[in-house]
Amino acid sequence: MKAQNLLNPLPDAFEGEVFDDLLSRPGLRLERIVSHGQGSPEGFWYEQQQHEWVLVLEGEAELGFEGGEAVHLAKGCCQLLPAGVKHRVNWTAPDRPTVWLALFFDP
Amino acid sequence: MKAQNLLNPLPDAFEGEVFDDLLSRPGLRLERIVSHGQGSPEGFWYEQQQHEWVLVLEGEAELGFEGGEAVHLAKGCCQLLPAGVKHRVNWTAPDRPTVWLALFFDP
Repeated sequence: MKAQNLLNPLPDAFEGEVFDDLLSRPGLRLERIVSHGQGSPEGFWYEQQQHEWVLVLEGEAELGFEGGEAVHLAKGCCQLLPAGVKHRVNWTAPDRPTVWLALFFDP
Repeated sequence: MKAQNLLNPLPDAFEGEVFDDLLSRPGLRLERIVSHGQGSPEGFWYEQQQHEWVLVLEGEAELGFEGGEAVHLAKGCCQLLPAGVKHRVNWTAPDRPTVWLALFFDP
């Protein structure tokens, strides 16, 4: 048996972020996201009905929140984004892939 | 705001594995496990009522299954362990920490 490796190989995300479902059950979804320099469009906010817990496996990113707060995510950093909390991706590292693990679950 | 980093600092797990709950909701639990050379005791098998999805964030390990199959987990490797499937940790890297993310969820 051979395990799936989330870091190798990585899809090329330079032209657009790549989303892969790892688990999908009622009320629960686990996703790998590969970014390469992308951020949320100007003025765009995520406002989700599910909680989201994110972890940066590789690379670097910054999340932004309404009111101007920001959270820097280095490799290994995780952040809970409660349902309904407006947030956006301010930026991801421009020079290398950023690999996210995102867990979505019902409140 | 400052994000929690699952890789830094790491607790010393040389004398025993260290378990930290990251999320705990009805039917869902997310845990960080830090190992340092530990494996399951001889003849011991996990046989769980919940599904478990594991990901190795750092280090290296091998899972064993009834019947003798084994799965090698390098950094970035993940594995779903369905409820009721007997498994054990054959070994973790003896010379450095192995950091696991473990997601437990109801069938």
